[in-house]
Amino acid sequence: MILIGEKINGMFKVIGKAVTEWDPKPIQDMAKQQEAAGAHYLDINTGPKAEDQVKTLKWMAEVVQEVTDLPLCLDCTNLDAIEEALKILKRPGMINSCKCEQAEIDRLFPLAVEHKAAVIGLCMNNKGVPKSADDRAAFAMELVANADAYGLPFEDLYLDPIALPVNVAQEHAVEVLEAIRQIKTLSNPAPRTVVGLSNVSQRTPHRAIINRTFAVMAMAVGLDSAILDVLDEPMVDAIATARLIMNKDIYCDSYQKVFRQHSI
Amino acid sequence: MILIGEKINGMFKVIGKAVTEWDPKPIQDMAKQQEAAGAHYLDINTGPKAEDQVKTLKWMAEVVQEVTDLPLCLDCTNLDAIEEALKILKRPGMINSCKCEQAEIDRLFPLAVEHKAAVIGLCMNNKGVPKSADDRAAFAMELVANADAYGLPFEDLYLDPIALPVNVAQEHAVEVLEAIRQIKTLSNPAPRTVVGLSNVSQRTPHRAIINRTFAVMAMAVGLDSAILDVLDEPMVDAIATARLIMNKDIYCDSYQKVFRQHSI
Repeated sequence: MILIGEKINGMFKVIGKAVTEWDPKPIQDMAKQQEAAGAHYLDINTGPKAEDQVKTLKWMAEVVQEVTDLPLCLDCTNLDAIEEALKILKRPGMINSCKCEQAEIDRLFPLAVEHKAAVIGLCMNNKGVPKSADDRAAFAMELVANADAYGLPFEDLYLDPIALPVNVAQEHAVEVLEAIRQIKTLSNPAPRTVVGLSNVSQRTPHRAIINRTFAVMAMAVGLDSAILDVLDEPMVDAIATARLIMNKDIYCDSYQKVFRQHSI
Repeated sequence: MILIGEKINGMFKVIGKAVTEWDPKPIQDMAKQQEAAGAHYLDINTGPKAEDQVKTLKWMAEVVQEVTDLPLCLDCTNLDAIEEALKILKRPGMINSCKCEQAEIDRLFPLAVEHKAAVIGLCMNNKGVPKSADDRAAFAMELVANADAYGLPFEDLYLDPIALPVNVAQEHAVEVLEAIRQIKTLSNPAPRTVVGLSNVSQRTPHRAIINRTFAVMAMAVGLDSAILDVLDEPMVDAIATARLIMNKDIYCDSYQKVFRQHSI
């Protein structure tokens, strides 16, 4: 299970302030904290307040790479910002994200191939998120076909079936689970699957339990990775436990600690 | 999700003492506690020390029925004890359990039909527990065929793929998950699925998290019920959360409390 730490995001107050003040320290501290907690990638997102997203994303990537060797997940709706940041990555990163829109695919997939980056492909287009598992899988198939056409390795395509908040779009969660199961059958090797976990619990008073329950249920049907709060210890413990149950890590009494240290 | 409370079992110290002293109070207290915690059935098991299992199981059923209207799950390897206890149940109960051995099926399935009881059918025979999901599903199919032959409604057949401890038989858990998925496709209506949850964490120092993680992962692939410690609140909360995610209960902010009160 590939854990993508979500905390370096201008939406969070401390990071937002650091971004507007060009203060690297809070960003670097958050990078180190997430690495220690077991993150395999660090997501970086300028947030909505950054005046110059191209300059800001690049700067964030630079300051994070000063304190960690973890690969970065470039999270920005501004495609120029992603293109510029890709150029300065010290190791292959991830593009977060590409909708199932041909113009966006045609811009981002070649960039991913050029920089050996992975791509998070969203199972949605500009019209929005589909309702059913089948429609999500149809978008996934289109993204897989494009990966094949562009020479993007299937293992570098992370398909996100789009989890929505359970309190306002409850009928979607079970469709997302079924979509994950279907996506894992679409190619050989299979594409990877990813979700933005925190979405599923938004504006509920039970965020932690909903997030971790959804995470392990999704792992049971083929979830490979998630963008999540790796500082949420019970969440990471639950994921480590699901790995044991799936027989992907060997049981030992200290398995939770072992998972944080190296396992994916 | 049908919760079968496991606590009225002579293996537990307090209950074992109550059984040997014919003292109804600790047994009745445990019945009431489990009902308040959300149990839908109460498992009753004499434990190994009872000298006369026939007499003891019947007495336990009687004293439990004095304090609760919940149906009982008769858990005993002595088939005479099950037969006698079935006769005094005030409402249709459950037989726990029947291995996939023809002689046992031929004795218990007609009894279940006669008393409108459900049966927990184990996906194993006298030779032991199979290794693979497919072999578990083969036993399941044999039990389904027997249910059909004997006129036991498929919904009254609870198939248990047999979860084993993750620390000594780690490769089994993922096979159990796959077996659950397969079992739900065997008939129409589908048989139900059940596991003895506490088995999966035996002799590990992480019992609660392993049990609840396995429970919700199994729910994601079709688990309908479990024999479990309903007094384990984080477990029941996790199950309530998985029900939401599967869109089986309607979200409200107090969903955990609501689940305890009536939901299955």
